[in-house]
Amino acid sequence: MAQKPEYELFYWPGIQGRGEFVRLAFEEAAAPYLDVARESGGVKALEKLLRERGTPVAPAPFAPPFLRHRKLMIAQTSAILHYIGPRLGLVPATEVGRFAALQHQLTIADWVAESHDVHHPIGVSLYYEDQKQEAARRSTDFRSGRLPKFLGYFESVLSASSRRSYLTGARISYADLSLFQVVSGLRYAFPRAFARAVRKAPRVSELAERVAERPNIAAYLKSSRRLAFNEQGIFRNYPELDEPAAGRKKR
Amino acid sequence: MAQKPEYELFYWPGIQGRGEFVRLAFEEAAAPYLDVARESGGVKALEKLLRERGTPVAPAPFAPPFLRHRKLMIAQTSAILHYIGPRLGLVPATEVGRFAALQHQLTIADWVAESHDVHHPIGVSLYYEDQKQEAARRSTDFRSGRLPKFLGYFESVLSASSRRSYLTGARISYADLSLFQVVSGLRYAFPRAFARAVRKAPRVSELAERVAERPNIAAYLKSSRRLAFNEQGIFRNYPELDEPAAGRKKR
Repeated sequence: MAQKPEYELFYWPGIQGRGEFVRLAFEEAAAPYLDVARESGGVKALEKLLRERGTPVAPAPFAPPFLRHRKLMIAQTSAILHYIGPRLGLVPATEVGRFAALQHQLTIADWVAESHDVHHPIGVSLYYEDQKQEAARRSTDFRSGRLPKFLGYFESVLSASSRRSYLTGARISYADLSLFQVVSGLRYAFPRAFARAVRKAPRVSELAERVAERPNIAAYLKSSRRLAFNEQGIFRNYPELDEPAAGRKKR
Repeated sequence: MAQKPEYELFYWPGIQGRGEFVRLAFEEAAAPYLDVARESGGVKALEKLLRERGTPVAPAPFAPPFLRHRKLMIAQTSAILHYIGPRLGLVPATEVGRFAALQHQLTIADWVAESHDVHHPIGVSLYYEDQKQEAARRSTDFRSGRLPKFLGYFESVLSASSRRSYLTGARISYADLSLFQVVSGLRYAFPRAFARAVRKAPRVSELAERVAERPNIAAYLKSSRRLAFNEQGIFRNYPELDEPAAGRKKR
């Protein structure tokens, strides 16, 4: 009988969502992990843990994703990555390097939240269809302001070191995997706006391609473990929220 | 001549903002820190650092707050607190306890971002006055859904341990200071809705009072270092976004 993996990831099945940032780290490191809610009875197990109170040093999660590792329960994507990063060899060995990775992850988390809120500017309790008008307005602000700002920031970070290096130096960290994931998601959600904006961020684009070509990531992306982007996740392809197609845009 | 404090906090002057979570930690620990942008020439120093590219292990910040400590530069509120927490004695000594504090801080950061977006649902590039209608809609969702949800979560966390303990155990951590700050901000921004919602979260309310009464925090709150809440910050008192006054609300 196969031994149960020591890492158990709890995340909603059916979407990449925030769980994907954790999955990418396990996949890159080829670390065995159980994606609990995609197993039989797993969603019930997840929901049961969400209802528990936890303890002061192992508090119940506010929301998925959360990770169980031996006796530890830990929620919040960035905290999970900060915990598994050193264990999987996905952060620099130095304290400053680890904080650089955490800082980047938190900036990416802000970017991800803003990307989500483009289609949910009023509230998560409402359907997109009930906030389409506000979403259209927010998408204009996102495409013209926030998208180029975040891309420009990471382009600047990458420009501080030599070509073909990573965000925190010569070796890959979980922050690079996360940047790849945001790039992939935004390319899916806003194909036209992203293609335009990324022209000014060639290093970000090149880094994302380089991550996708890493053997373990490439194998993962082709596997059934990688869910497809869809319109229940963070990054949704609603054509009306992308910039108008060429030819329809006049100056 | 007085020695320069080893911790230099960079944050916009004039608002509490996200810098306040860091200030509260320094104040509780009675650790000397320089609030750079409130000194002469400080805003220029902050803006200069924002324009720099940094290095792979000390990347430039995406936005304030950021902290300089010796050779380290670190941005993102939660990362700053995770860094200074052990140095100031504001986290448990164990790894699990430190991750519990980080997890809570990240949940509070989500709550703070959502509190901000109530008055800025469309984008930070626009004034509140240009998104009042959307803000009114979002405030309804926030008051009826998100506010009780976050309060209920932290009430549940506190109910897992004995009375008069803190989020991560018997001793105070930076997460408790942050919870106090969110409670204070929401009480300012939504006096009626918060008063109603917090009735179901008596432990959260009691914790916030207990934090406010700690000698160093009490002294800080009375000092000129504590800026007043105002309508340029995260928590803004726009009466039209609060629940209607009693008597105007019918069932």
